[in-house]
Amino acid sequence: MQWPFPLLQPPAKRLLCCALQQNSGKPARMSAFSRFTPLISALPSTVPFVGPEALERQRGLTVQARIGANENGFGPAPSVIEAMRENAGDIWKYNDPENFALKEALAAHLGIKQANIAVGEGIDSLLGLIARMVIEPGTPVVTSLGGYPTFNFHVVGFGGRLVTVPYVNDREDLDGLLDAVRRENAPLVYFANPDNPMGSWWDADRIVAFARALPESCLLILDEAYSETGPASSLPDISTLIDLPNVLRTRTFSKAYGLAGARVGYAIGVPETVLAFDKIRNHFGMNRLATAAALAALKDQAYLAEVVGKIQAAREQIGMIARDNGLLPLASATNFVAVDCGRDGTYARAIVDGLIQHGVFIRMPGVAPLNRCIRISVGPSQDLDLLAEALPKVLKAIG
Amino acid sequence: MQWPFPLLQPPAKRLLCCALQQNSGKPARMSAFSRFTPLISALPSTVPFVGPEALERQRGLTVQARIGANENGFGPAPSVIEAMRENAGDIWKYNDPENFALKEALAAHLGIKQANIAVGEGIDSLLGLIARMVIEPGTPVVTSLGGYPTFNFHVVGFGGRLVTVPYVNDREDLDGLLDAVRRENAPLVYFANPDNPMGSWWDADRIVAFARALPESCLLILDEAYSETGPASSLPDISTLIDLPNVLRTRTFSKAYGLAGARVGYAIGVPETVLAFDKIRNHFGMNRLATAAALAALKDQAYLAEVVGKIQAAREQIGMIARDNGLLPLASATNFVAVDCGRDGTYARAIVDGLIQHGVFIRMPGVAPLNRCIRISVGPSQDLDLLAEALPKVLKAIG
Repeated sequence: MQWPFPLLQPPAKRLLCCALQQNSGKPARMSAFSRFTPLISALPSTVPFVGPEALERQRGLTVQARIGANENGFGPAPSVIEAMRENAGDIWKYNDPENFALKEALAAHLGIKQANIAVGEGIDSLLGLIARMVIEPGTPVVTSLGGYPTFNFHVVGFGGRLVTVPYVNDREDLDGLLDAVRRENAPLVYFANPDNPMGSWWDADRIVAFARALPESCLLILDEAYSETGPASSLPDISTLIDLPNVLRTRTFSKAYGLAGARVGYAIGVPETVLAFDKIRNHFGMNRLATAAALAALKDQAYLAEVVGKIQAAREQIGMIARDNGLLPLASATNFVAVDCGRDGTYARAIVDGLIQHGVFIRMPGVAPLNRCIRISVGPSQDLDLLAEALPKVLKAIG
Repeated sequence: MQWPFPLLQPPAKRLLCCALQQNSGKPARMSAFSRFTPLISALPSTVPFVGPEALERQRGLTVQARIGANENGFGPAPSVIEAMRENAGDIWKYNDPENFALKEALAAHLGIKQANIAVGEGIDSLLGLIARMVIEPGTPVVTSLGGYPTFNFHVVGFGGRLVTVPYVNDREDLDGLLDAVRRENAPLVYFANPDNPMGSWWDADRIVAFARALPESCLLILDEAYSETGPASSLPDISTLIDLPNVLRTRTFSKAYGLAGARVGYAIGVPETVLAFDKIRNHFGMNRLATAAALAALKDQAYLAEVVGKIQAAREQIGMIARDNGLLPLASATNFVAVDCGRDGTYARAIVDGLIQHGVFIRMPGVAPLNRCIRISVGPSQDLDLLAEALPKVLKAIG
């Protein structure tokens, strides 16, 4: 099976194997349970997502600037941290399985109905549920070549067949995605606006036209994880797509709201489509403090505006650091900047690997031609100062 | 499709429909996306799990004694609450996708290897993953008639065919389960020890014999959610089953550790079987504060011993209240007590419905003959005092 996660490194089978041997004190010799489904048996058995903690353990270093995972180093509002602290004593209670209060607040905030909203443990979890709703073994699923790898992970995990469309000028190719959907009669297409890993975006009218041009037999996942950090013109008004049974817009508290570790995402669609989540979701899956945090975050729109300003300033700062080093920052509508290093993926990988030796954690796209870039997340000035200090040394060292 | 959740009330389709109409301000008229898989299309579209918050909203009352969901009203250790408060500011970071620190601590605590452990968002989430690993449409899956309904939810959600074995003397029937596995050539069997909803248990030697008697082609989920609250003799030593590729033991921080709202569970098995979780799990699904809480909880074994004592005392108190009212408490190894009300399910339902009118939230099994019982979770004395006050009034009112 082809390695389906272009943003990430291929599976470190050797490492995993060694880890097993080390842990058991002797070479692994047992077999797995013998009767997993053929689909499960065929999937790669590895941890496909390397976190900064794993890099620290593997390389014996300490991450000083955590600017690689598109987290928001400015953190959530003080009111949000306070809400978690205040509610900590209630953690013995399961969260409301209907997520009523959060859906009520989101509906009021967005000007839609509660029935338009499904809440889940981050967009990643919702993507898994949507994949399960639509994919059977062999189902064609359209996405961009080099797009969000966790979506690919779920598609492959349900036996779907990835149909990838190359980026054009570092943007996802709307016409190409539409063509692929029609050609393959695909029931599912993924499109992120603004995009990860490139930070690029389309204007709202183009998105709406794309959504309305899709066959009704194709479900569009419009991933708007970065909706709060882009220009207003890039975000379709909530009313423009709310009547389409084949559109689910996904959003999160992980990015602009600074709550990546909380796991709160939501999907927006027509009530009849949204109801499908209730058929299969983990009804008691939400963390109770995460819900309290999301409610508080939604209330503190003044802080959101402030932090979006900080994110914009940090993008500028990253851009300056890139240019100071002869690299080209791409325009970004997200909380990160893709920086064109002007050469190939090997060169960009050397920069990523060099920076981590200085305690600076960044990532990079995994597929050409996107992998000529490195991807740097925003963070406080002191983090970006570490980047500014390390980058010229790394570039000089690798020549 | 038969309603697969015996512990719970059948789907309130009418209520859901009304809710939709109320939310949208007009009768629902749109359709859902047209191309969900046949399996998803056939599943019931409803919220099968009614939480106490939903009861409060539906009935316009306030729950005064929350002793229905097998939560632990004594709460987690103060050190655990402090750990969450201290780490609240770190919530902008994703949790380590490898859950290294928690697996390391669990491995040390249990005397096993990290490679023996998979961490997930509560046992409910792990059950869903295991179901996905083994079940294809039509796959026979064995469980007890009236056993844990969330497992049934996941089985049905993947198209499995539930094969149920009646309880015998209010215990899950080990011989019956084994017979059913053999007869159906089932690849998956679920067995909880101690059991929910009855609170009963088997001794360790019987469990081990059962596990070893199973065909290797059948995966045993040995759900030990309540392992900390039972007699020591009911818990197989960790070493006795650790070499069986077809056994996964599931445990949680939701019960004795008082962290139901955090969502931290784990599965124990041979490394090769445990690796299968990595193929499909939501790698970034864990809440960061939940992990900090679980680590702190594991460290505070003195508090665990103290709270287990409180749970035992509360079971005694529930037993006395039951007997004072002419009802029969069943022996329990869990954090709840099933109380035999001596008549049928209608009578028990009337007691449950009567108690909630007094602000006392309890639940009951949904399948005869278990449904002659009500199920009361432990809690602080003041909660049980409310039960003691309300129960005679309810019994008198329903006659």
